[in-house]
Amino acid sequence: MALALKKCGYATEICGWDLNERHRQEALELGLVDTISTEDRALQAELVIVAIPVDQAAAQIASYLTRLSDEGVLMDVGSTKQVLCRALSGHPRRSRFVATHPIAGTEFSGPSAASGGLFTDKISLICEAERSGPTALKRVRDLYQQLQMQVIEMDAQAHDLHMAYVSQLSHLSSFTLSNTILALEKEEGQISNLAGSGFASTVRLAKSAPDTWTAILLENRKNVLEALEAYTVQLEALRAILQAGRAADLRRYLEDANRIAAILKRI
Amino acid sequence: MALALKKCGYATEICGWDLNERHRQEALELGLVDTISTEDRALQAELVIVAIPVDQAAAQIASYLTRLSDEGVLMDVGSTKQVLCRALSGHPRRSRFVATHPIAGTEFSGPSAASGGLFTDKISLICEAERSGPTALKRVRDLYQQLQMQVIEMDAQAHDLHMAYVSQLSHLSSFTLSNTILALEKEEGQISNLAGSGFASTVRLAKSAPDTWTAILLENRKNVLEALEAYTVQLEALRAILQAGRAADLRRYLEDANRIAAILKRI
Repeated sequence: MALALKKCGYATEICGWDLNERHRQEALELGLVDTISTEDRALQAELVIVAIPVDQAAAQIASYLTRLSDEGVLMDVGSTKQVLCRALSGHPRRSRFVATHPIAGTEFSGPSAASGGLFTDKISLICEAERSGPTALKRVRDLYQQLQMQVIEMDAQAHDLHMAYVSQLSHLSSFTLSNTILALEKEEGQISNLAGSGFASTVRLAKSAPDTWTAILLENRKNVLEALEAYTVQLEALRAILQAGRAADLRRYLEDANRIAAILKRI
Repeated sequence: MALALKKCGYATEICGWDLNERHRQEALELGLVDTISTEDRALQAELVIVAIPVDQAAAQIASYLTRLSDEGVLMDVGSTKQVLCRALSGHPRRSRFVATHPIAGTEFSGPSAASGGLFTDKISLICEAERSGPTALKRVRDLYQQLQMQVIEMDAQAHDLHMAYVSQLSHLSSFTLSNTILALEKEEGQISNLAGSGFASTVRLAKSAPDTWTAILLENRKNVLEALEAYTVQLEALRAILQAGRAADLRRYLEDANRIAAILKRI
């Protein structure tokens, strides 16, 4: 996001901060940030963007808000919103905070995974926009507009539910597929030899960062478990059809699944 | 394959045949084939390439072999090999047949999905090579070499087992993910709005052709069910970890899954 904001002219100076010293160094070397100083210094920016594991977000952001400069605005970009919004709902500076979730990312993490072109034509969600003040909201809406993203407002509860369905469940199925194949194929060479682009695509998300995803899955556990339950029901239906060799039902199951193609075209 | 064989100079004239009249017309218009005539005429070629649903392959190829010209060689490119190889094992012209499976494809089908660059640097499997005569084997090996593919020999039983693991299970998880999301999200607009590239990647194979995949999954049903059983065990382990909120175990599960990254690099 730092890369993209510099490129589009939204940001003139970017000051970065990260707990990880190597990442701080990399971010400087890769030109993602202009300076690295201290957390306190970074919090003096006109706009503070917080990208940290979601299980740390509520406590950290509450503290950050208190330490913002008088005109400062803070936004987060985390994948869960309900716990965070609830925790900050009584914060005296709640109006300076904007809860956002840009739907753009890859399976890679760390400064070296940065890509300035990640956001164009994607969607970003803003939750509980009515609790952000007009100045804060405008600053963040301008940011997403300059990144050429479409902003959609959504309440935090709906956000977490739908994200469990369309994002977190995909990750669960990929993580599971990876561990299944690693367990079944004792010789990893067989996987390299026999797997095609289809396997690579389906298992891609299994490369995602364990810290980030442990936090997301646990924070949104109730919704994730509901999505997983629905997935298990569908999987069991497919298993029963296969077990019984019911060709017409199998064909119908696959035809039903094909309907996703028309929806994916619009992504 | 027709496109690629013409481009690399392996084929001088390509005669196509398809049961589907519209596909015959499209193949001509797109320049995939030089001529469309009749099935009998196509079987007079030096090399006949059969690409049909695997449940039709054994009977059709047995008939085709009988009708080949005296010097003709026939290869198939289907995704299952055990039933086919067993069915043809006593065929008087078995030595003219080469059972192959190029590990290259997309989720799309029909002439309009043809891509001449699909094969470069991929792997193709040949099963029961010892039952193919030297002339037939050389003709097919030359073909794959000119397509810049690496050939690996494998027995038909091992082929079907490993394919259930690394290919067919990926398809099952994608078909299931698609049907789950379509069931959970009554409003398809929510999927378009909230799904990112991660979902698109994981669910990509759910667009695959129902006829092709009904045949593959049923023909290789025993192995596919075994793979699905292993997947269900892993999924249930993940569900139990989530249900109990065991953060350390969840982190370890995701770290284990991350190991696929090193293997995918080699694909």
